[in-house]
Amino acid sequence: MTRMDIELAHELDARDELASFRNEFVIADPNLIYLDGNSLGRLPKRTIEFMRNSIEDAWGERLIRLWSDGWIHTPTRLGAKIARLIGAQEDEIVVAEATSINLFKLAIAALRARPERTKIVSDVFNFPSDLYIFQGIIDLLGRRHRLELIPSKDTITIAPEAISAAIDSDTALVSLTHVAFKSAFMHDMPAVTEQAHRAGAFMLWDLSHSAGVVPVDLNASGVDLAVGCTYKYLNGGPGAPAFLYVRRDLQTQLSQPLWGWFAAKNPFAFELDFAPADNISRYRVGTPPMLSMKALEPALDIVLEAGIERLRAKSVRQTDYLISLAEQRLVPLGFGIGTPKRSEMRGSHVSLRHPEAYRINRALIEAEPSDIKVIPDFREPDNIRLGIAPLYNSFLDIYLAIDRMRQIVRDGIYEKYSPERLEVT
Amino acid sequence: MTRMDIELAHELDARDELASFRNEFVIADPNLIYLDGNSLGRLPKRTIEFMRNSIEDAWGERLIRLWSDGWIHTPTRLGAKIARLIGAQEDEIVVAEATSINLFKLAIAALRARPERTKIVSDVFNFPSDLYIFQGIIDLLGRRHRLELIPSKDTITIAPEAISAAIDSDTALVSLTHVAFKSAFMHDMPAVTEQAHRAGAFMLWDLSHSAGVVPVDLNASGVDLAVGCTYKYLNGGPGAPAFLYVRRDLQTQLSQPLWGWFAAKNPFAFELDFAPADNISRYRVGTPPMLSMKALEPALDIVLEAGIERLRAKSVRQTDYLISLAEQRLVPLGFGIGTPKRSEMRGSHVSLRHPEAYRINRALIEAEPSDIKVIPDFREPDNIRLGIAPLYNSFLDIYLAIDRMRQIVRDGIYEKYSPERLEVT
Repeated sequence: MTRMDIELAHELDARDELASFRNEFVIADPNLIYLDGNSLGRLPKRTIEFMRNSIEDAWGERLIRLWSDGWIHTPTRLGAKIARLIGAQEDEIVVAEATSINLFKLAIAALRARPERTKIVSDVFNFPSDLYIFQGIIDLLGRRHRLELIPSKDTITIAPEAISAAIDSDTALVSLTHVAFKSAFMHDMPAVTEQAHRAGAFMLWDLSHSAGVVPVDLNASGVDLAVGCTYKYLNGGPGAPAFLYVRRDLQTQLSQPLWGWFAAKNPFAFELDFAPADNISRYRVGTPPMLSMKALEPALDIVLEAGIERLRAKSVRQTDYLISLAEQRLVPLGFGIGTPKRSEMRGSHVSLRHPEAYRINRALIEAEPSDIKVIPDFREPDNIRLGIAPLYNSFLDIYLAIDRMRQIVRDGIYEKYSPERLEVT
Repeated sequence: MTRMDIELAHELDARDELASFRNEFVIADPNLIYLDGNSLGRLPKRTIEFMRNSIEDAWGERLIRLWSDGWIHTPTRLGAKIARLIGAQEDEIVVAEATSINLFKLAIAALRARPERTKIVSDVFNFPSDLYIFQGIIDLLGRRHRLELIPSKDTITIAPEAISAAIDSDTALVSLTHVAFKSAFMHDMPAVTEQAHRAGAFMLWDLSHSAGVVPVDLNASGVDLAVGCTYKYLNGGPGAPAFLYVRRDLQTQLSQPLWGWFAAKNPFAFELDFAPADNISRYRVGTPPMLSMKALEPALDIVLEAGIERLRAKSVRQTDYLISLAEQRLVPLGFGIGTPKRSEMRGSHVSLRHPEAYRINRALIEAEPSDIKVIPDFREPDNIRLGIAPLYNSFLDIYLAIDRMRQIVRDGIYEKYSPERLEVT
């Protein structure tokens, strides 16, 4: 039997070359194990000072002049930093709005460039709101299009044959989330992109659960379009603005429908007729929420300093370790592994399944004051999702979280919580 | 001749019941006269502490739990506060995204509810990006609609007859900015709304230059839809999120096309098919940029404490004073008044016109270190726009700004600046 004691966790942490990055983050409560960095990343310490300066020095003292001090270029400057994490050119990415709005812009741009085709292909693992956006677009464009969802046979993976079967000569757009929010299944980006292209369709990837933790090479995969979120593994803060990618040669060929001020070629000319920018700014809309956007800047620097390849290597070691621990200590108690076991098929979170997952999740979060408190995410119907953020999660975090789950099930601690779903209030 | 010396400015400040609100704001440089609060409002002192708590205590310590601590309701809670400033019910407003995106949502909602009509009516004073959004919508919806712009004969006002002439039985939507960004001309909201309704059209007001400084009564005027900006007179910070209003009885009748997560009836059910919320949340989209949104909260409280009627009364006194001063001291030097002289026809900024406006504006901003520095806004071709924010601008500010403009023109100080337009870099 593999050695799985707490000493091993300590040894793995001692050997971890990225361990010092944990000090970059505010860790207010040492008894709180935070495994929800894939919903909201932790606060980087340097963000505190950076935001104080952004608020007091820039807004407070420079006032409107902050725009000409360089703030006006923040969306593209941050885009250039994200580009280094996902294999894009620095002028192919801009930070703007929310993921859903960027998806709306780029999906419409793609559909309008294939006017004779009627199909959008996605999968049943996509985040529901990505599907909502497509449903809204179909409604808006007169119901000429339809959305086809690639099925899953096992609720954990999508089979390559199912993907091939869905993409055809009527497909205008294939839009998938690279790493599934529930099972962490990771699509084969180069292979799926090539299939979309072979059928003459555009390929749009949602990188929300990949950016900052899984190396992605958009250029090498020939990807057309992408969107993603910055408040998960990029630690940009609650609701931090999203990003979008448009491959350079497509930037002037396509056009998005939200003709905002910053999408114009010469915004400050105040002309009455819109003329679009001939670069990535064409995909922007209005004035960005700058305090939220500024908070992203120091956070991105930390990810770049750690290096995406090293982060991925640690993430794989950690999720492998988590799955081994769970197999040894939780599976005998009725848990299932809801995530692909082969690391090349998964992102950086692991879903553990149990019929009482909802109550176990509540017990993890609402621990008695003397207990270790664990914050995962519950996802219907039976998933406890453990997000591993290699920048700040330790092997000890993982050991203690699994140990606590074992205790909660073994001792029936979860039984004092109601299975009734709480409303978010 | 009316008395117009600096003593009068001091006396007016001494009699100003709102004078103490100036202390609510960070005023770092006492030699800087800031007359650009209609582009970016000043930083409220209380925002500093509030944001420190939002970042360090909420994000840093509570982490993902901040949402259930009440953050999830911030967009509607702030909407309820804005409602009190613009004559709406508290469940008729939500803070979301940027003004352009909100305009896109609501304009499409209106057009789709009048499918047989083809005309959008606006005016030549509207902010160009409002027009860009309409142009983008027309392009998106297959060029079935057209945009008709009500003309101005004098570049300062829009005549009632011109409005009547434009609105007809083919008009689906009338969308105007209540207070024009250049001349400060203010539309007669009840009268225009009634005309739109008589023709069977929807009325959508952009309140960007009104909210927080001009009392608006959306309910009393029967307004259908409105949008507005919060980084001007509401002091929400650079690019602070915008707001939107949908009259209660229209909320479930209309639908907007950006079907995001927070527009859904039960976002946390993660269902694959979109079902829209049956309240104002239907007009939301994705996760809001919370740091930017949080900054709006203490700022709104200050406006509510001062009271919108008192703010308007002071604003009228101040713009009247500014115009009188300009007539006495600047008109003889070649300036023109680019704003309606009757206070009931204008908002809270005054445009002064001069053939050398661009160079005068630069001289105002780039003063020698020993000089009073004034920050107005230049707007093509010949407007120096002086924004009066009655929360923090004093009568002395106005006196000194006009005095400085007089000096710059009288002594030819502006001549050392090039008329070449600087690019924003």
